[in-house]
Amino acid sequence: MTEIMAGNRPVNKLIEKKALELNRECKILIVGTGLIGGSYAMGLSRKGYDVSAIDTDADSIAFGLEKGYFRRGSTEAQPDMLAAADIVVIGLYPTTLLKWLEDNQQYLRPGTLITDVSGVKSSIVDKAQSFLRRDVEFCASHPMAGREVSGIRNADWRIFRNANFIITPTAGNTAEGIATVRALAEELEFKTIRELDVYAHDRMIGFLSQLTHAIAVSLMTCNDDEDLAAFTGDSFRDLTRIARINDVMWSELFLLNRDILMENIDQFSAELGRLRGMLEQNDRDGLRQMFRKSTERRAQFDAGK
Amino acid sequence: MTEIMAGNRPVNKLIEKKALELNRECKILIVGTGLIGGSYAMGLSRKGYDVSAIDTDADSIAFGLEKGYFRRGSTEAQPDMLAAADIVVIGLYPTTLLKWLEDNQQYLRPGTLITDVSGVKSSIVDKAQSFLRRDVEFCASHPMAGREVSGIRNADWRIFRNANFIITPTAGNTAEGIATVRALAEELEFKTIRELDVYAHDRMIGFLSQLTHAIAVSLMTCNDDEDLAAFTGDSFRDLTRIARINDVMWSELFLLNRDILMENIDQFSAELGRLRGMLEQNDRDGLRQMFRKSTERRAQFDAGK
Repeated sequence: MTEIMAGNRPVNKLIEKKALELNRECKILIVGTGLIGGSYAMGLSRKGYDVSAIDTDADSIAFGLEKGYFRRGSTEAQPDMLAAADIVVIGLYPTTLLKWLEDNQQYLRPGTLITDVSGVKSSIVDKAQSFLRRDVEFCASHPMAGREVSGIRNADWRIFRNANFIITPTAGNTAEGIATVRALAEELEFKTIRELDVYAHDRMIGFLSQLTHAIAVSLMTCNDDEDLAAFTGDSFRDLTRIARINDVMWSELFLLNRDILMENIDQFSAELGRLRGMLEQNDRDGLRQMFRKSTERRAQFDAGK
Repeated sequence: MTEIMAGNRPVNKLIEKKALELNRECKILIVGTGLIGGSYAMGLSRKGYDVSAIDTDADSIAFGLEKGYFRRGSTEAQPDMLAAADIVVIGLYPTTLLKWLEDNQQYLRPGTLITDVSGVKSSIVDKAQSFLRRDVEFCASHPMAGREVSGIRNADWRIFRNANFIITPTAGNTAEGIATVRALAEELEFKTIRELDVYAHDRMIGFLSQLTHAIAVSLMTCNDDEDLAAFTGDSFRDLTRIARINDVMWSELFLLNRDILMENIDQFSAELGRLRGMLEQNDRDGLRQMFRKSTERRAQFDAGK
């Protein structure tokens, strides 16, 4: 995995106007006030930022205004709201994000910094950076947080406190833009903030998040015996907690990262097949060795928590 | 799944001396004071029972005596301790259990009720009932509780409070024997107590417990990229919590239930393969349908909690 080190970054000549340093005077626009966008709005307004929001759902806007998550809200991309923003956080699904940027970049003012919250990067970052104006900057990031419920009514900035935040800079970013996104994550109190290149990010997410969801869903749907529900214990509940899944968002995330995810499924399936082979061969020593390896690794995780 | 209904049970003519009804005067012997045996001892002595214990590990016996989990303890199967017991709970691994019973049944007094804590049943219940004396009764049961740590030092009767307790009666059991095992589980405050036939139990356990452990272990061992640890979030942690696994016990449990477990692995693998196929085909609708099914089922579980 390629973690990006500060200092190694190529100097970027594309961005003609650099982003502001984050300060409490910055005006922040949240586009898409779902669970994550809503939690950003909540966390940032709590810190005193001037937050405004756009969402096509009138009820979400009304709720956010009522709760004080943002000062102004609209169900449409109003040119004056876009022009007023120093920072735009796009909380839309990946493909909707690209469409929104294409349609609305004309209204942004020079020097605007744009970031996102998408769970996949390869398929959107290059595209967005290629068609964006040269006087605004898109620096992608991924808040690795979520809940089993969605929408601004379930927003809670505290979901970030134990979560990782990943910035995925490219040659199309400036040190200033990256620093501003990092500062934003610090204000939202993420536990750790790291930089990864776009492809390393998607490989990591493919394994740690997408494969785990694919497993949980398959386990939940592979057996039709309803009587089993009466006997489920902690193990089954643990493994299927994330089987409650937003079908629109996750089908999009899976398909945008499908090559990597298929590879991860194959890697996992081969290992489960290896275990099955040991059962077939009555290979007690092989099983014990595999269990000891798994126990050691999991113990290391717990130690590093 | 065949849940056994009271009243349907064949009258048993094999047992020549029926078990006592459970009462606080009963003397209970725990054989094998690991996590579960130790937690039984702790829970039952707390309720005022006269508990004694046998374990080959002197340190476990010393610890249990010091904590007051039992009044008498021994590292050997002393004939007088066995003869004094009304109820014997065998907390050993399945194969050790059979050996122990063969070696020591001679010392039991007529009317002794024996139960166990094993996670597999088909491979031991018939065997045990076939070689046991006719004047003692073996009524198998499975406390579906555990922790990621083992041994009497981690014993805690409270692990039973949210757990299922399964009794697996056969034609070799009496209504009185079953009632006594049920009463024991009630004293230990299990959340639910149910009866299943031996094969239904092993199918249920194969899916809900063994398959989940096989998945967790395979997920934990299938990827050697140590850098991933820095990015693990809740999903990965949830799915691998049970990857800390006692290699001796679980290799035994897996192999004793291997045919069922291999079938469960195949069933799960086919479903994960189906998901992979949808990725390959770019089948968004298929994925969404699968995710909706999984979400509904998991929501039903949460509702029934």
